[in-house]
Amino acid sequence: MRAAIFNKPGDITLGNRPDAAIVAPTDAVVRVVQACVCGSDLWYYRGDSPFEPGDPIGHEFIGVVQDIGAEVRGLARGDLVVAPFAYSDGTCVHCRYGITTACLHGGFIPAGNGDGGQGEAVRVPLADGTLVKVPGSGHSDEMLASLLTLSDVMGTGHHAAVCARVTAGATVAVVGDGAVGLCGVLAAKRLGAERVIALSRHPARQDIARRFGATDIVADRGDDAVAAVTELTGGVGVDATLECVGTGQAMQTALAITRPGAMVGFVGVPHGVELPIGQMFRRNTGVHGGPAPVRAYLPELLDDVLAGRINPGLVFDHTTDLDGVAEAYAAMDERRAIKSLLRVSTI
Amino acid sequence: MRAAIFNKPGDITLGNRPDAAIVAPTDAVVRVVQACVCGSDLWYYRGDSPFEPGDPIGHEFIGVVQDIGAEVRGLARGDLVVAPFAYSDGTCVHCRYGITTACLHGGFIPAGNGDGGQGEAVRVPLADGTLVKVPGSGHSDEMLASLLTLSDVMGTGHHAAVCARVTAGATVAVVGDGAVGLCGVLAAKRLGAERVIALSRHPARQDIARRFGATDIVADRGDDAVAAVTELTGGVGVDATLECVGTGQAMQTALAITRPGAMVGFVGVPHGVELPIGQMFRRNTGVHGGPAPVRAYLPELLDDVLAGRINPGLVFDHTTDLDGVAEAYAAMDERRAIKSLLRVSTI
Repeated sequence: MRAAIFNKPGDITLGNRPDAAIVAPTDAVVRVVQACVCGSDLWYYRGDSPFEPGDPIGHEFIGVVQDIGAEVRGLARGDLVVAPFAYSDGTCVHCRYGITTACLHGGFIPAGNGDGGQGEAVRVPLADGTLVKVPGSGHSDEMLASLLTLSDVMGTGHHAAVCARVTAGATVAVVGDGAVGLCGVLAAKRLGAERVIALSRHPARQDIARRFGATDIVADRGDDAVAAVTELTGGVGVDATLECVGTGQAMQTALAITRPGAMVGFVGVPHGVELPIGQMFRRNTGVHGGPAPVRAYLPELLDDVLAGRINPGLVFDHTTDLDGVAEAYAAMDERRAIKSLLRVSTI
Repeated sequence: MRAAIFNKPGDITLGNRPDAAIVAPTDAVVRVVQACVCGSDLWYYRGDSPFEPGDPIGHEFIGVVQDIGAEVRGLARGDLVVAPFAYSDGTCVHCRYGITTACLHGGFIPAGNGDGGQGEAVRVPLADGTLVKVPGSGHSDEMLASLLTLSDVMGTGHHAAVCARVTAGATVAVVGDGAVGLCGVLAAKRLGAERVIALSRHPARQDIARRFGATDIVADRGDDAVAAVTELTGGVGVDATLECVGTGQAMQTALAITRPGAMVGFVGVPHGVELPIGQMFRRNTGVHGGPAPVRAYLPELLDDVLAGRINPGLVFDHTTDLDGVAEAYAAMDERRAIKSLLRVSTI
């Protein structure tokens, strides 16, 4: 089958791999309908994080169940499913606590040296616990794109908002205008934030942020951004901050604009972040975050997507197919695209 | 008047100071009835944090209002009051949010080069916002000791529990068996924790921890403590951890025993603490803490103390008077005492 292969930093191309197949009786094989490129894939693409040359890549996809192992009970061939970027059994002590990304038997896609999401099909371990069936049929392309965000970015933006303790009526700031940051704006609004300040300097992203519910845009960075948010909040700082980048500067900014007693929810994989514990202590500001337990959030977010209450698929502004995977990466790397969608097959 | 003076590290003695007096119309002067030595005073005593030689010291006391400024409305001469270690106006945006230790017009006792709590009297700024009147009369010495803990340690232990998000039914660990850690045990129990694991190697402290509601005692430290708590929780970790020390090892232990998705509440002033952001991210463990907004918690804790539902005064195991202040410090420094109480005057 065809699948994207990581050759080396800056070089991801379409290649050939053995067909995805059931290995364990709890597996399912999913034929990919739509996949996409994640901001975290760019860490590998840019050489900032290690990745094994020759391995398949990608972890965000929706698709149709093509085959199931003998022990899979809740799924059938032909089901349209959302695949969270982490697989989990749904029954262990951590899954029941809601942290499916810490599942005792779980892991991340690509699993082991298994299939990547940017390919024709994927073996998904622990299919009953992991995959979420999408009800209905005849979903529009727009709806499929929104469903695709539930495999990662929408759930991750929501996790940032949950970790930041966004509450109804709150004033919230979102640092980062990538797809996760934009989904964070949408998540904060969905949780009842009254005011959402999006830090973004790109007009196209500012536009989506506004459509997602941002009430204020701050185009500055660093100290200037801190000054601007401080002024917007009458010197107080915000009630909750979503840090959706993962760099030291983004975290510094996030902590500086957070009011005393409030939280920074962070979901960007930390790269060169040092937490200023003295400042955090003096100001009673906390941090909480990590790999989003997207699977745990999927039911409630899926309901809202299917009902049309949220439309996170707007984050996709570059659409291609598997043959265009190299350009899908390049467009995001060069910030010509917010997020690239790969149409792989039809339902 | 007589008051404890910081001469140099290891040398705190009783000295003479000008009588406490009203300076601003919002001040009150409180004649000290009982005061005590704080674990944070030991950082100065041991030379680990700077302190100005010749200055008065101490910030935990209860007393009787002796004089009030022209603008003080809610207090009268003769009122028995608890004085939180930070003064605050109670009306600013941060006070209304519950973080009185970030009051726009507030500060910490000793205020400026003002009076310390370990003396005969203290000028308290912003008296209406700061001081809390204790109803009733004829309180026993035992009750007064419990009221005294509301000036700092009981509110600080409670803050650790709040920041750790202790909920009813939770399994909680408390790192640190000083007075704050012990009060943290009591606070966690009060908030409904079902199981409270106290890390303590001192029999006398273990005994108080048990009386405060600890269900399990772990006498190990470092990796051994982590292994012990992990075993006690069936490999899961605890639902909330209170870090009540402030050292790097205490924070490492706290983060390691906290289950994925849960929080460490920290209230020990950080000394040499580096937060392992990569580990925190991977495990979805967060941290939150700082100087406790004791004033905000005082009403609810005062109710419970007066009703006899909690008896935090048990943390005092060394009682003397102002003449014994040097020994009060030495006993705590040498860990012969958990916490030293100074009887300064009678009601």
